[in-house]
Amino acid sequence: MNKTMYGYERTSTLSFDEAETAIRKTLADHGFGILTEIDVAATLKAKLGVERDAYKILGACNPALANQAIGFDDEMGLLLPCNVVVATVDGSTRVSVVDPHAMLGVAGDSAELAKVASEARDKLVAALEAIN
Amino acid sequence: MNKTMYGYERTSTLSFDEAETAIRKTLADHGFGILTEIDVAATLKAKLGVERDAYKILGACNPALANQAIGFDDEMGLLLPCNVVVATVDGSTRVSVVDPHAMLGVAGDSAELAKVASEARDKLVAALEAIN
Repeated sequence: MNKTMYGYERTSTLSFDEAETAIRKTLADHGFGILTEIDVAATLKAKLGVERDAYKILGACNPALANQAIGFDDEMGLLLPCNVVVATVDGSTRVSVVDPHAMLGVAGDSAELAKVASEARDKLVAALEAIN
Repeated sequence: MNKTMYGYERTSTLSFDEAETAIRKTLADHGFGILTEIDVAATLKAKLGVERDAYKILGACNPALANQAIGFDDEMGLLLPCNVVVATVDGSTRVSVVDPHAMLGVAGDSAELAKVASEARDKLVAALEAIN
Protein backbone atom coordinates (compact mmCIF):
# COMPACT_ATOMS: atom_id res chain seq x y z
CA MET A 1 0.00 0.00 0.00
CA ASN A 2 1.32 3.43 -0.95
CA LYS A 3 0.57 6.79 0.59
CA THR A 4 -0.22 9.24 -2.19
CA MET A 5 -1.02 12.95 -2.31
CA TYR A 6 -4.66 12.53 -1.31
CA GLY A 7 -4.89 9.05 0.12
CA TYR A 8 -3.71 5.47 -0.02
CA GLU A 9 -3.61 3.08 -2.93
CA ARG A 10 -2.69 -0.48 -3.70
CA THR A 11 -2.65 -2.83 -6.61
CA SER A 12 -5.12 -5.67 -6.21
CA THR A 13 -4.72 -9.17 -7.60
CA LEU A 14 -8.46 -9.15 -8.35
CA SER A 15 -10.25 -8.20 -11.54
CA PHE A 16 -11.92 -4.79 -11.62
CA ASP A 17 -15.37 -6.21 -10.83
CA GLU A 18 -14.04 -8.53 -8.14
CA ALA A 19 -12.12 -5.66 -6.53
CA GLU A 20 -15.22 -3.46 -6.48
CA THR A 21 -17.21 -6.24 -4.83
CA ALA A 22 -14.39 -6.89 -2.35
CA ILE A 23 -13.85 -3.27 -1.30
CA ARG A 24 -17.61 -2.75 -0.90
CA LYS A 25 -17.66 -5.72 1.49
CA THR A 26 -14.61 -4.68 3.53
CA LEU A 27 -15.89 -1.09 3.71
CA ALA A 28 -19.20 -2.44 5.04
CA ASP A 29 -17.24 -4.47 7.58
CA HIS A 30 -15.79 -1.15 8.80
CA GLY A 31 -19.13 0.66 8.97
CA PHE A 32 -19.14 2.39 5.57
CA GLY A 33 -22.11 2.25 3.25
CA ILE A 34 -21.69 3.21 -0.40
CA LEU A 35 -24.06 6.12 -0.99
CA THR A 36 -22.91 7.20 -4.44
CA GLU A 37 -21.30 5.63 -7.47
CA ILE A 38 -19.88 7.32 -10.55
CA ASP A 39 -18.79 5.24 -13.51
CA VAL A 40 -16.26 7.79 -14.75
CA ALA A 41 -15.31 5.84 -17.86
CA ALA A 42 -18.96 5.48 -18.93
CA THR A 43 -19.71 9.14 -18.13
CA LEU A 44 -16.74 10.47 -20.12
CA LYS A 45 -17.62 8.15 -23.00
CA ALA A 46 -21.25 9.34 -23.00
CA LYS A 47 -20.52 13.05 -22.53
CA LEU A 48 -17.26 13.55 -24.42
CA GLY A 49 -16.81 10.42 -26.55
CA VAL A 50 -13.57 9.77 -24.64
CA GLU A 51 -12.38 6.17 -24.34
CA ARG A 52 -10.50 5.29 -21.19
CA ASP A 53 -9.82 2.31 -18.92
CA ALA A 54 -12.37 1.40 -16.26
CA TYR A 55 -12.52 4.00 -13.47
CA LYS A 56 -15.22 4.18 -10.84
CA ILE A 57 -15.68 6.50 -7.86
CA LEU A 58 -17.58 5.08 -4.88
CA GLY A 59 -18.79 7.49 -2.18
CA ALA A 60 -18.36 5.78 1.18
CA CYS A 61 -20.06 7.06 4.30
CA ASN A 62 -19.79 5.97 7.90
CA PRO A 63 -22.97 7.55 9.30
CA ALA A 64 -21.73 7.99 12.86
CA LEU A 65 -18.50 9.69 11.75
CA ALA A 66 -20.31 11.82 9.15
CA ASN A 67 -22.79 12.95 11.79
CA GLN A 68 -19.93 13.95 14.09
CA ALA A 69 -18.11 15.80 11.33
CA ILE A 70 -21.18 17.80 10.29
CA GLY A 71 -21.95 18.44 13.94
CA PHE A 72 -18.54 20.03 14.45
CA ASP A 73 -18.71 22.01 11.21
CA ASP A 74 -21.95 22.40 9.28
CA GLU A 75 -19.97 23.06 6.08
CA MET A 76 -18.35 19.61 6.19
CA GLY A 77 -20.87 18.22 3.69
CA LEU A 78 -18.78 19.95 1.02
CA LEU A 79 -16.11 17.30 1.70
CA LEU A 80 -18.29 14.20 2.11
CA PRO A 81 -18.56 11.30 1.39
CA CYS A 82 -15.12 9.65 1.52
CA ASN A 83 -14.17 8.60 -1.98
CA VAL A 84 -12.89 5.21 -3.00
CA VAL A 85 -11.61 4.76 -6.55
CA VAL A 86 -11.39 1.45 -8.39
CA ALA A 87 -9.47 1.74 -11.64
CA THR A 88 -7.77 -0.36 -14.27
CA VAL A 89 -4.20 0.95 -14.60
CA ASP A 90 -1.78 -0.68 -17.05
CA GLY A 91 -3.87 -3.84 -17.05
CA SER A 92 -3.94 -4.16 -13.27
CA THR A 93 -6.63 -3.21 -10.79
CA ARG A 94 -5.83 -0.34 -8.47
CA VAL A 95 -7.93 0.57 -5.46
CA SER A 96 -7.52 3.92 -3.68
CA VAL A 97 -9.12 5.49 -0.63
CA VAL A 98 -9.06 9.18 0.22
CA ASP A 99 -7.25 10.40 3.33
CA PRO A 100 -9.81 12.63 5.07
CA HIS A 101 -6.91 14.57 6.60
CA ALA A 102 -5.72 15.57 3.13
CA MET A 103 -9.10 17.19 2.44
CA LEU A 104 -9.42 18.98 5.74
CA GLY A 105 -6.44 21.26 5.25
CA VAL A 106 -6.35 23.97 7.84
CA ALA A 107 -9.44 22.61 9.57
CA GLY A 108 -7.15 19.83 10.73
CA ASP A 109 -6.25 22.33 13.42
CA SER A 110 -9.55 21.44 15.08
CA ALA A 111 -8.68 18.62 17.46
CA GLU A 112 -12.23 17.24 17.34
CA LEU A 113 -12.39 17.16 13.56
CA ALA A 114 -8.88 15.75 13.34
CA LYS A 115 -9.93 12.90 15.62
CA VAL A 116 -12.93 12.06 13.41
CA ALA A 117 -10.74 12.29 10.29
CA SER A 118 -8.16 9.94 11.82
CA GLU A 119 -10.83 7.43 12.75
CA ALA A 120 -12.29 7.54 9.23
CA ARG A 121 -8.83 7.20 7.70
CA ASP A 122 -7.92 4.21 9.87
CA LYS A 123 -11.15 2.42 8.92
CA LEU A 124 -10.72 3.19 5.20
CA VAL A 125 -7.13 1.95 5.25
CA ALA A 126 -8.16 -1.20 7.11
CA ALA A 127 -10.81 -1.87 4.45
CA LEU A 128 -8.21 -1.37 1.73
CA GLU A 129 -5.75 -3.70 3.44
CA ALA A 130 -8.41 -6.40 3.77
CA ILE A 131 -8.91 -7.00 0.05
CA ASN A 132 -6.67 -9.27 -2.01
CA MET B 1 -22.03 35.49 -0.90
CA ASN B 2 -19.43 34.50 1.68
CA LYS B 3 -16.13 32.76 1.20
CA THR B 4 -15.86 29.99 3.76
CA MET B 5 -13.15 27.51 4.69
CA TYR B 6 -13.94 25.11 1.85
CA GLY B 7 -16.03 27.10 -0.57
CA TYR B 8 -18.66 29.79 -1.04
CA GLU B 9 -22.09 30.04 0.49
CA ARG B 10 -25.10 32.30 0.37
CA THR B 11 -28.53 32.48 1.88
CA SER B 12 -31.28 32.06 -0.71
CA THR B 13 -34.73 33.64 -0.58
CA LEU B 14 -36.10 30.36 -1.99
CA SER B 15 -37.53 27.40 -0.14
CA PHE B 16 -35.29 24.34 0.18
CA ASP B 17 -36.93 22.54 -2.75
CA GLU B 18 -37.00 25.66 -4.91
CA ALA B 19 -33.34 26.32 -4.19
CA GLU B 20 -32.38 22.77 -5.11
CA THR B 21 -34.25 23.09 -8.40
CA ALA B 22 -32.71 26.51 -9.06
CA ILE B 23 -29.10 25.51 -8.37
CA ARG B 24 -29.49 22.37 -10.49
CA LYS B 25 -30.60 24.58 -13.37
CA THR B 26 -27.86 27.21 -13.01
CA LEU B 27 -25.23 24.48 -12.61
CA ALA B 28 -26.49 22.93 -15.85
CA ASP B 29 -26.23 26.36 -17.47
CA HIS B 30 -22.53 26.29 -16.54
CA GLY B 31 -21.90 22.79 -17.82
CA PHE B 32 -22.32 20.78 -14.62
CA GLY B 33 -24.47 17.69 -14.43
CA ILE B 34 -25.52 16.33 -11.05
CA LEU B 35 -24.14 12.79 -10.87
CA THR B 36 -24.81 12.03 -7.22
CA GLU B 37 -27.23 13.08 -4.52
CA ILE B 38 -27.14 12.34 -0.80
CA ASP B 39 -30.08 13.26 1.37
CA VAL B 40 -28.01 13.61 4.55
CA ALA B 41 -30.99 14.30 6.81
CA ALA B 42 -32.82 11.18 5.59
CA THR B 43 -29.67 9.05 5.79
CA LEU B 44 -28.85 10.10 9.36
CA LYS B 45 -32.49 9.57 10.35
CA ALA B 46 -32.52 6.09 8.82
CA LYS B 47 -29.10 4.97 10.11
CA LEU B 48 -28.83 6.73 13.47
CA GLY B 49 -32.33 7.92 14.30
CA VAL B 50 -30.96 11.48 14.33
CA GLU B 51 -33.37 14.33 13.53
CA ARG B 52 -31.89 17.32 11.76
CA ASP B 53 -32.88 20.08 9.36
CA ALA B 54 -32.89 19.37 5.64
CA TYR B 55 -29.37 18.89 4.26
CA LYS B 56 -28.55 17.53 0.84
CA ILE B 57 -25.23 17.03 -0.94
CA LEU B 58 -25.29 17.20 -4.74
CA GLY B 59 -22.26 15.94 -6.67
CA ALA B 60 -21.74 18.27 -9.64
CA CYS B 61 -19.50 17.31 -12.54
CA ASN B 62 -18.38 19.27 -15.57
CA PRO B 63 -17.23 16.41 -17.82
CA ALA B 64 -14.65 18.42 -19.77
CA LEU B 65 -13.00 19.77 -16.61
CA ALA B 66 -13.17 16.40 -14.84
CA ASN B 67 -11.52 14.75 -17.83
CA GLN B 68 -8.72 17.32 -17.77
CA ALA B 69 -8.22 16.95 -14.02
CA ILE B 70 -8.00 13.15 -14.18
CA GLY B 71 -5.74 13.45 -17.21
CA PHE B 72 -3.28 15.58 -15.24
CA ASP B 73 -3.46 13.38 -12.16
CA ASP B 74 -5.03 9.94 -12.26
CA GLU B 75 -5.68 10.13 -8.50
CA MET B 76 -7.97 13.15 -8.87
CA GLY B 77 -11.09 10.98 -8.75
CA LEU B 78 -10.55 10.90 -4.98
CA LEU B 79 -11.60 14.58 -4.97
CA LEU B 80 -14.47 14.47 -7.49
CA PRO B 81 -17.24 15.45 -8.06
CA CYS B 82 -17.55 19.06 -6.88
CA ASN B 83 -19.99 19.17 -4.00
CA VAL B 84 -22.92 21.53 -3.67
CA VAL B 85 -24.83 21.59 -0.39
CA VAL B 86 -28.40 22.77 0.05
CA ALA B 87 -29.39 23.09 3.70
CA THR B 88 -32.00 24.60 5.94
CA VAL B 89 -30.19 26.72 8.53
CA ASP B 90 -32.12 28.65 11.17
CA GLY B 91 -35.23 28.52 8.99
CA SER B 92 -33.47 29.88 5.91
CA THR B 93 -32.13 28.09 2.88
CA ARG B 94 -28.37 28.09 2.46
CA VAL B 95 -26.61 26.97 -0.69
CA SER B 96 -22.86 26.25 -0.72
CA VAL B 97 -20.41 25.21 -3.42
CA VAL B 98 -17.00 23.73 -2.80
CA ASP B 99 -13.88 25.62 -3.86
CA PRO B 100 -11.85 23.05 -5.80
CA HIS B 101 -8.69 24.93 -4.79
CA ALA B 102 -9.44 24.24 -1.14
CA MET B 103 -9.40 20.51 -1.86
CA LEU B 104 -6.30 20.47 -4.01
CA GLY B 105 -3.94 21.56 -1.27
CA VAL B 106 -0.33 21.19 -2.30
CA ALA B 107 -1.33 19.91 -5.75
CA GLY B 108 -2.36 23.49 -6.39
CA ASP B 109 1.33 23.93 -7.17
CA SER B 110 0.63 22.29 -10.51
CA ALA B 111 -0.15 25.17 -12.85
CA GLU B 112 -2.28 22.97 -15.10
CA LEU B 113 -4.40 21.61 -12.26
CA ALA B 114 -4.69 25.06 -10.70
CA LYS B 115 -6.07 26.38 -13.99
CA VAL B 116 -8.72 23.63 -14.14
CA ALA B 117 -9.59 24.24 -10.49
CA SER B 118 -9.97 27.97 -11.09
CA GLU B 119 -12.21 27.39 -14.07
CA ALA B 120 -14.38 24.98 -12.08
CA ARG B 121 -14.53 27.41 -9.16
CA ASP B 122 -15.54 30.33 -11.37
CA LYS B 123 -18.35 28.32 -12.96
CA LEU B 124 -19.59 27.03 -9.59
CA VAL B 125 -19.59 30.54 -8.13
CA ALA B 126 -21.42 31.88 -11.19
CA ALA B 127 -24.08 29.20 -10.76
CA LEU B 128 -24.41 30.12 -7.07
CA GLU B 129 -24.73 33.80 -7.90
CA ALA B 130 -27.42 33.13 -10.47
CA ILE B 131 -30.02 31.76 -8.04
CA ASN B 132 -32.32 33.99 -6.02
